[in-house]
Amino acid sequence: MILEKSDEFFMLEALKEAQKAFDLDEVPIGAVIVSDGQIIARAHNLTEQLNDVTAHAEMQAFTSAAEHLGGKYLKDCTLYVTIEPCVMCSGASYWAQLKCIVYGAKDEKRGVSKLGVNLFHQKTIVTSGLLEEECAKLMQGFFHKKRSK
Amino acid sequence: MILEKSDEFFMLEALKEAQKAFDLDEVPIGAVIVSDGQIIARAHNLTEQLNDVTAHAEMQAFTSAAEHLGGKYLKDCTLYVTIEPCVMCSGASYWAQLKCIVYGAKDEKRGVSKLGVNLFHQKTIVTSGLLEEECAKLMQGFFHKKRSK
Repeated sequence: MILEKSDEFFMLEALKEAQKAFDLDEVPIGAVIVSDGQIIARAHNLTEQLNDVTAHAEMQAFTSAAEHLGGKYLKDCTLYVTIEPCVMCSGASYWAQLKCIVYGAKDEKRGVSKLGVNLFHQKTIVTSGLLEEECAKLMQGFFHKKRSK
Repeated sequence: MILEKSDEFFMLEALKEAQKAFDLDEVPIGAVIVSDGQIIARAHNLTEQLNDVTAHAEMQAFTSAAEHLGGKYLKDCTLYVTIEPCVMCSGASYWAQLKCIVYGAKDEKRGVSKLGVNLFHQKTIVTSGLLEEECAKLMQGFFHKKRSK
Protein backbone atom coordinates (compact mmCIF):
# COMPACT_ATOMS: atom_id res chain seq x y z
CA MET A 1 0.00 0.00 0.00
CA ILE A 2 1.37 3.40 -0.96
CA LEU A 3 0.47 6.19 1.36
CA GLU A 4 -0.29 9.57 -0.20
CA LYS A 5 1.85 12.37 1.05
CA SER A 6 -0.40 14.85 2.75
CA ASP A 7 -0.84 18.57 2.36
CA GLU A 8 0.77 18.91 5.77
CA PHE A 9 3.84 17.02 4.61
CA PHE A 10 4.32 19.44 1.72
CA MET A 11 3.71 22.51 3.85
CA LEU A 12 6.36 21.25 6.27
CA GLU A 13 8.73 21.12 3.30
CA ALA A 14 7.78 24.70 2.42
CA LEU A 15 8.51 25.59 6.05
CA LYS A 16 11.98 24.06 5.73
CA GLU A 17 12.53 26.41 2.78
CA ALA A 18 11.27 29.35 4.85
CA GLN A 19 13.74 28.41 7.59
CA LYS A 20 16.57 28.58 5.04
CA ALA A 21 15.50 32.14 4.18
CA PHE A 22 15.38 32.98 7.91
CA ASP A 23 18.91 31.69 8.36
CA LEU A 24 20.06 33.96 5.52
CA ASP A 25 18.38 36.98 7.14
CA GLU A 26 15.75 37.04 4.40
CA VAL A 27 12.03 37.49 5.05
CA PRO A 28 11.26 33.83 5.87
CA ILE A 29 8.90 32.60 3.18
CA GLY A 30 9.26 29.22 1.53
CA ALA A 31 7.47 27.37 -1.23
CA VAL A 32 7.30 23.98 -2.90
CA ILE A 33 5.46 22.94 -6.05
CA VAL A 34 3.98 19.48 -6.25
CA SER A 35 3.01 17.58 -9.38
CA ASP A 36 1.66 14.05 -9.33
CA GLY A 37 2.48 13.67 -5.65
CA GLN A 38 6.12 14.71 -6.03
CA ILE A 39 7.94 17.92 -5.22
CA ILE A 40 9.22 19.28 -8.52
CA ALA A 41 10.42 22.69 -7.30
CA ARG A 42 11.41 24.26 -4.00
CA ALA A 43 12.53 27.79 -3.24
CA HIS A 44 12.81 30.42 -0.56
CA ASN A 45 12.77 34.16 -0.63
CA LEU A 46 16.10 35.57 -1.84
CA THR A 47 15.34 39.23 -2.54
CA GLU A 48 18.28 40.47 -0.44
CA GLN A 49 20.84 37.90 -1.54
CA LEU A 50 19.96 38.40 -5.21
CA ASN A 51 19.28 42.12 -4.86
CA ASP A 52 16.07 41.61 -6.78
CA VAL A 53 12.49 42.35 -5.72
CA THR A 54 11.22 39.65 -8.07
CA ALA A 55 13.06 36.86 -6.22
CA HIS A 56 10.13 35.81 -4.05
CA ALA A 57 9.92 32.10 -3.18
CA GLU A 58 6.88 31.56 -5.40
CA MET A 59 8.41 33.26 -8.47
CA GLN A 60 11.53 31.14 -8.30
CA ALA A 61 9.41 28.04 -7.76
CA PHE A 62 7.28 28.79 -10.85
CA THR A 63 10.37 29.21 -13.02
CA SER A 64 11.94 26.06 -11.61
CA ALA A 65 8.77 23.95 -11.98
CA ALA A 66 8.29 25.03 -15.59
CA GLU A 67 11.91 24.15 -16.28
CA HIS A 68 11.35 20.72 -14.72
CA LEU A 69 8.15 20.04 -16.65
CA GLY A 70 9.36 21.50 -19.94
CA GLY A 71 6.22 23.60 -20.30
CA LYS A 72 5.37 26.98 -18.89
CA TYR A 73 1.89 26.09 -17.61
CA LEU A 74 1.48 24.45 -14.22
CA LYS A 75 -2.11 23.31 -14.68
CA ASP A 76 -1.69 20.08 -12.70
CA CYS A 77 0.45 21.56 -9.96
CA THR A 78 -0.13 22.67 -6.40
CA LEU A 79 1.86 25.48 -4.84
CA TYR A 80 2.43 25.22 -1.10
CA VAL A 81 3.66 28.51 0.30
CA THR A 82 4.07 29.49 3.93
CA ILE A 83 2.64 33.01 3.58
CA GLU A 84 -0.19 34.41 1.47
CA PRO A 85 1.05 35.46 -1.98
CA CYS A 86 1.50 39.13 -2.85
CA VAL A 87 0.09 40.83 -5.96
CA MET A 88 3.15 39.98 -8.07
CA CYS A 89 3.13 36.29 -7.16
CA SER A 90 -0.65 36.02 -7.56
CA GLY A 91 -0.32 37.59 -11.00
CA ALA A 92 2.40 35.10 -11.91
CA SER A 93 0.25 32.20 -10.66
CA TYR A 94 -2.50 33.48 -12.95
CA TRP A 95 -0.23 33.16 -15.98
CA ALA A 96 0.99 29.72 -14.84
CA GLN A 97 -2.64 28.58 -14.37
CA LEU A 98 -1.90 26.60 -11.23
CA LYS A 99 -4.41 23.97 -10.20
CA CYS A 100 -4.20 24.70 -6.47
CA ILE A 101 -2.55 27.11 -4.09
CA VAL A 102 -2.29 26.22 -0.41
CA TYR A 103 -0.87 28.87 1.87
CA GLY A 104 -0.20 28.96 5.59
CA ALA A 105 -0.66 32.35 7.20
CA LYS A 106 -2.24 35.48 5.84
CA ASP A 107 -0.08 38.52 5.07
CA GLU A 108 -2.09 41.27 6.70
CA LYS A 109 -0.10 44.03 5.00
CA ARG A 110 0.68 42.83 1.48
CA GLY A 111 -1.48 39.77 0.93
CA VAL A 112 -3.93 39.83 -1.95
CA SER A 113 -7.01 38.93 0.06
CA LYS A 114 -7.10 42.48 1.44
CA LEU A 115 -7.72 43.90 -2.05
CA GLY A 116 -11.18 42.43 -2.44
CA VAL A 117 -10.59 41.34 -6.06
CA ASN A 118 -9.62 37.89 -7.21
CA LEU A 119 -6.24 38.05 -8.91
CA PHE A 120 -5.83 34.29 -9.17
CA HIS A 121 -6.82 32.31 -12.25
CA GLN A 122 -10.48 31.36 -12.17
CA LYS A 123 -9.51 27.67 -12.27
CA THR A 124 -7.08 27.90 -9.33
CA ILE A 125 -8.42 26.55 -6.03
CA VAL A 126 -6.98 28.56 -3.15
CA THR A 127 -6.86 27.21 0.42
CA SER A 128 -5.43 28.98 3.45
CA GLY A 129 -4.62 28.29 7.08
CA LEU A 130 -2.54 25.10 6.81
CA LEU A 131 0.06 25.13 9.62
CA GLU A 132 -0.85 28.78 9.95
CA GLU A 133 0.68 29.18 13.40
CA GLU A 134 4.05 27.71 12.44
CA CYS A 135 4.21 29.79 9.25
CA ALA A 136 3.29 33.02 11.05
CA LYS A 137 5.65 32.29 13.95
CA LEU A 138 8.69 32.28 11.69
CA MET A 139 7.70 35.68 10.28
CA GLN A 140 7.06 37.12 13.74
CA GLY A 141 10.43 35.81 14.92
CA PHE A 142 12.13 37.44 11.94
CA PHE A 143 10.58 40.87 12.42
CA HIS A 144 11.11 40.71 16.20
CA LYS A 145 14.81 40.00 15.56
CA LYS A 146 14.96 42.92 13.07
CA ARG A 147 13.35 45.38 15.48
CA SER A 148 15.61 44.41 18.38
CA LYS A 149 18.80 44.93 16.35
CA MET B 1 23.99 72.67 -25.18
CA ILE B 2 22.90 69.17 -24.20
CA LEU B 3 19.45 68.20 -25.33
CA GLU B 4 17.38 66.09 -22.95
CA LYS B 5 16.24 62.84 -24.38
CA SER B 6 12.48 62.85 -24.51
CA ASP B 7 9.87 60.40 -23.34
CA GLU B 8 9.22 59.66 -26.99
CA PHE B 9 12.85 58.77 -27.56
CA PHE B 10 12.72 56.21 -24.76
CA MET B 11 9.42 54.75 -25.90
CA LEU B 12 10.88 54.30 -29.37
CA GLU B 13 13.67 52.31 -27.71
CA ALA B 14 11.04 50.19 -25.93
CA LEU B 15 9.39 49.68 -29.32
CA LYS B 16 12.70 48.42 -30.72
CA GLU B 17 12.67 45.85 -27.92
CA ALA B 18 9.07 44.91 -28.75
CA GLN B 19 10.09 44.40 -32.38
CA LYS B 20 12.80 41.97 -31.23
CA ALA B 21 10.10 39.97 -29.43
CA PHE B 22 7.92 40.06 -32.55
CA ASP B 23 10.78 38.71 -34.64
CA LEU B 24 11.13 35.81 -32.17
CA ASP B 25 7.41 35.03 -32.42
CA GLU B 26 6.89 36.28 -28.86
CA VAL B 27 4.02 38.55 -27.82
CA PRO B 28 5.65 41.85 -28.87
CA ILE B 29 6.13 43.86 -25.69
CA GLY B 30 9.30 45.79 -24.96
CA ALA B 31 10.59 47.86 -22.07
CA VAL B 32 13.44 50.12 -21.09
CA ILE B 33 14.31 51.58 -17.69
CA VAL B 34 15.80 55.03 -17.48
CA SER B 35 17.78 56.52 -14.62
CA ASP B 36 19.29 59.97 -14.70
CA GLY B 37 18.53 60.34 -18.41
CA GLN B 38 20.22 57.10 -19.40
CA ILE B 39 18.86 53.69 -20.33
CA ILE B 40 20.11 51.28 -17.67
CA ALA B 41 18.07 48.23 -18.67
CA ARG B 42 16.24 46.99 -21.75
CA ALA B 43 14.26 43.83 -22.31
CA HIS B 44 11.57 42.19 -24.36
CA ASN B 45 9.07 39.49 -23.63
CA LEU B 46 10.67 36.05 -23.68
CA THR B 47 8.04 33.78 -22.12
CA GLU B 48 8.16 31.28 -25.00
CA GLN B 49 11.91 31.24 -25.52
CA LEU B 50 12.56 30.84 -21.80
CA ASN B 51 9.51 28.67 -21.19
CA ASP B 52 8.68 30.86 -18.22
CA VAL B 53 5.54 32.89 -17.56
CA THR B 54 7.53 35.29 -15.39
CA ALA B 55 9.77 36.40 -18.29
CA HIS B 56 7.76 39.49 -19.19
CA ALA B 57 9.75 42.46 -20.53
CA GLU B 58 9.15 44.50 -17.37
CA MET B 59 10.23 41.72 -14.97
CA GLN B 60 13.51 41.19 -16.78
CA ALA B 61 14.05 44.95 -16.91
CA PHE B 62 13.51 45.31 -13.15
CA THR B 63 16.05 42.56 -12.42
CA SER B 64 18.52 44.04 -14.87
CA ALA B 65 18.14 47.61 -13.59
CA ALA B 66 18.62 46.53 -9.98
CA GLU B 67 21.73 44.63 -11.01
CA HIS B 68 23.03 47.77 -12.76
CA LEU B 69 22.31 50.05 -9.82
CA GLY B 70 23.46 47.63 -7.14
CA GLY B 71 20.27 48.15 -5.15
CA LYS B 72 16.88 46.51 -5.47
CA TYR B 73 14.80 49.69 -5.33
CA LEU B 74 14.25 51.75 -8.48
CA LYS B 75 12.99 54.90 -6.77
CA ASP B 76 14.59 57.28 -9.27
CA CYS B 77 13.78 55.26 -12.35
CA THR B 78 11.19 55.45 -15.10
CA LEU B 79 9.89 52.36 -16.84
CA TYR B 80 8.86 52.79 -20.46
CA VAL B 81 6.84 49.84 -21.66
CA THR B 82 4.93 49.48 -24.90
CA ILE B 83 1.83 47.82 -23.39
CA GLU B 84 0.03 48.35 -20.08
CA PRO B 85 1.54 46.17 -17.35
CA CYS B 86 -0.30 43.07 -16.12
CA VAL B 87 -1.00 42.24 -12.46
CA MET B 88 2.33 40.45 -12.00
CA CYS B 89 4.41 43.30 -13.42
CA SER B 90 2.43 45.94 -11.56
CA GLY B 91 3.02 44.00 -8.35
CA ALA B 92 6.73 43.83 -9.09
CA SER B 93 6.82 47.57 -9.81
CA TYR B 94 5.23 48.10 -6.39
CA TRP B 95 8.10 46.29 -4.70
CA ALA B 96 10.67 48.16 -6.80
CA GLN B 97 8.99 51.49 -5.92
CA LEU B 98 9.48 52.98 -9.37
CA LYS B 99 9.26 56.73 -9.71
CA CYS B 100 7.35 56.70 -13.01
CA ILE B 101 5.77 54.25 -15.39
CA VAL B 102 5.00 55.35 -18.96
CA TYR B 103 3.16 52.88 -21.12
CA GLY B 104 1.96 53.01 -24.70
CA ALA B 105 -1.25 51.13 -25.38
CA LYS B 106 -3.76 49.68 -22.95
CA ASP B 107 -4.13 45.91 -22.64
CA GLU B 108 -7.88 45.54 -22.80
CA LYS B 109 -7.81 41.94 -21.62
CA ARG B 110 -5.06 41.68 -19.01
CA GLY B 111 -4.11 45.25 -18.15
CA VAL B 112 -4.46 46.34 -14.55
CA SER B 113 -6.61 49.40 -15.23
CA LYS B 114 -9.60 47.12 -15.79
CA LEU B 115 -9.49 45.91 -12.18
CA GLY B 116 -10.48 49.22 -10.64
CA VAL B 117 -7.89 48.99 -7.85
CA ASN B 118 -4.50 50.65 -7.82
CA LEU B 119 -1.81 47.98 -7.67
CA PHE B 120 1.07 50.39 -8.26
CA HIS B 121 3.05 51.96 -5.43
CA GLN B 122 1.38 55.11 -4.16
CA LYS B 123 4.49 57.11 -5.09
CA THR B 124 4.62 55.82 -8.69
CA ILE B 125 3.33 58.26 -11.34
CA VAL B 126 1.67 56.34 -14.16
CA THR B 127 1.17 57.84 -17.63
CA SER B 128 -0.39 56.12 -20.62
CA GLY B 129 -0.94 56.70 -24.34
CA LEU B 130 2.60 57.56 -25.49
CA LEU B 131 3.01 56.29 -29.07
CA GLU B 132 -0.13 54.30 -28.36
CA GLU B 133 -0.89 53.58 -32.00
CA GLU B 134 2.58 52.23 -32.80
CA CYS B 135 2.60 50.07 -29.65
CA ALA B 136 -0.87 48.67 -30.34
CA LYS B 137 -0.14 48.11 -34.02
CA LEU B 138 2.68 45.69 -33.27
CA MET B 139 0.39 43.65 -31.02
CA GLN B 140 -2.41 43.64 -33.60
CA GLY B 141 0.04 42.53 -36.28
CA PHE B 142 1.24 39.70 -34.03
CA PHE B 143 -2.20 38.35 -33.22
CA HIS B 144 -3.34 38.74 -36.80
CA LYS B 145 -0.32 36.67 -37.90
CA LYS B 146 -1.13 34.02 -35.25
CA ARG B 147 -4.76 33.73 -36.29
CA SER B 148 -3.94 33.42 -39.96
CA LYS B 149 -1.48 30.55 -39.37
